[in-house]
Amino acid sequence: MMPSAAPPPVSAASPIGIFDSGIGGLTVVKEVMQQLPGEDIIYYGDTARVPYGIKSIKTVREYALQITDFLLAQHVKAVLIACNTVAAAANKEVRARCGALPVLDVVEAGAYAALQAGRTSGNIGVMGTLATINSHTYDRAIAALSPDRFIYSQACPMLVPLAEEGWIEDEISARCIARYLGEMRGRELDALILGCTHYPLFKKEIQDFFEGTGTHIIDSARSIAAQTQQVLKKQQLLNKQTSRRGSLSCYVSDTPQRFQELAERFLGSPLDRIEVQPLNL
Amino acid sequence: MMPSAAPPPVSAASPIGIFDSGIGGLTVVKEVMQQLPGEDIIYYGDTARVPYGIKSIKTVREYALQITDFLLAQHVKAVLIACNTVAAAANKEVRARCGALPVLDVVEAGAYAALQAGRTSGNIGVMGTLATINSHTYDRAIAALSPDRFIYSQACPMLVPLAEEGWIEDEISARCIARYLGEMRGRELDALILGCTHYPLFKKEIQDFFEGTGTHIIDSARSIAAQTQQVLKKQQLLNKQTSRRGSLSCYVSDTPQRFQELAERFLGSPLDRIEVQPLNL
Repeated sequence: MMPSAAPPPVSAASPIGIFDSGIGGLTVVKEVMQQLPGEDIIYYGDTARVPYGIKSIKTVREYALQITDFLLAQHVKAVLIACNTVAAAANKEVRARCGALPVLDVVEAGAYAALQAGRTSGNIGVMGTLATINSHTYDRAIAALSPDRFIYSQACPMLVPLAEEGWIEDEISARCIARYLGEMRGRELDALILGCTHYPLFKKEIQDFFEGTGTHIIDSARSIAAQTQQVLKKQQLLNKQTSRRGSLSCYVSDTPQRFQELAERFLGSPLDRIEVQPLNL
Repeated sequence: MMPSAAPPPVSAASPIGIFDSGIGGLTVVKEVMQQLPGEDIIYYGDTARVPYGIKSIKTVREYALQITDFLLAQHVKAVLIACNTVAAAANKEVRARCGALPVLDVVEAGAYAALQAGRTSGNIGVMGTLATINSHTYDRAIAALSPDRFIYSQACPMLVPLAEEGWIEDEISARCIARYLGEMRGRELDALILGCTHYPLFKKEIQDFFEGTGTHIIDSARSIAAQTQQVLKKQQLLNKQTSRRGSLSCYVSDTPQRFQELAERFLGSPLDRIEVQPLNL
């Protein structure tokens, strides 16, 4: 056993750590870059071991802590869990490992933002992968904040491969969205949570599909970025420098097929440098 | 180090071993059951570690040999590699491990069947996953048998999730097929290989799409079953018993979401018993 690490020295100039099982979490990076342009970011995507959704909780916890340790060793000032599966399975473990450092996750951020959208029907919709929907993670996160909401869930397995294929704002993606969300559209939802890091790519299409229904479309990536700003501000850890754009250091455990193209699609901008940094594979 | 295992005692009554990275290989099991109804089958699907296509060649070889050892320990009389990635990465290693036992794989079987379809234009089409297409496995297997064919390849990443979603003979799958194969349809292909274990589920749709073009649609699952019959007959290892239907013993390394439903869709019939049998995880 190694002794527990002492909390690393952090300051407003320290980077923000963000991680995901793959590269979908770059949608969170994109939002943090837009909302907090002065911040340096360290991203880790576990591309060699993706997808986490089919692995045991024990394994997901082990992987999440390996990545957390990697980020802590880079002296990050906050850790953002951009992976729904990790948020569901290893949230507490990651928080315990990070000690006093703020840890935010996409599930809590999405649940919070959905409730902020206000209440008319009391109904909230959640879209996610099969693993996320079956884990009822969002149901629990919403119930913890507001126990009397009615939640409609829909697994949308085709949307991840559609995003990775780049078929966005496309007749096939439109038909998939209509098929998955047709029933929810009649539910007078106050809010619909895009409960997967890939789904912000379909935000416009989903918004168009719900047009006129009064449903707020909740982009968890945008929500977690907004909450990060609030938390860092409160802890006086915001990097207010304006002399340069914050840097992005991107680490992955493997570079699969079409990786660069995919990463840039999620990030919405070119990505200069990616380092391959395997953990305990 | 364990000493090398001596070749196991096999006879016509011994089972046939079939394996895949996941459950797609059950399309091969289905064909073997239809063409060789007296044979007992042992199937292994490495559902805990699927997909192999994104893993390193070294890792795929290690996994393939673990499964081969498991099948050899059951005294199988032949090994069928139902996984395109294993056929590409670990074909020689599996054959070496099996010694004198016949080893057949879907890639060789598909390539052979495509050439058997006859020659008019000399053009052959190959559909597969991104990993299979980028590995050029089929190109090499066809070139080894007939070096002057022209090969058109098309990665069809949406077809695996479509099969797993069960959207078969469906307007969305029809649109995906038309998009992926539209260009190939004009190529006067002599044959089109369904180079992924999931694709036989779309065989009718693909056949309809190519109707009137003279293209033979090559189902690798059907091809490998036919070749298995020939090889076993030649080696006097065919199980000719007709007193009962052959048995199917199905082993997997994990039972993911919707596993049973999916397995039965690929197998085309109910599946009584599945044993979870992790290897060296």
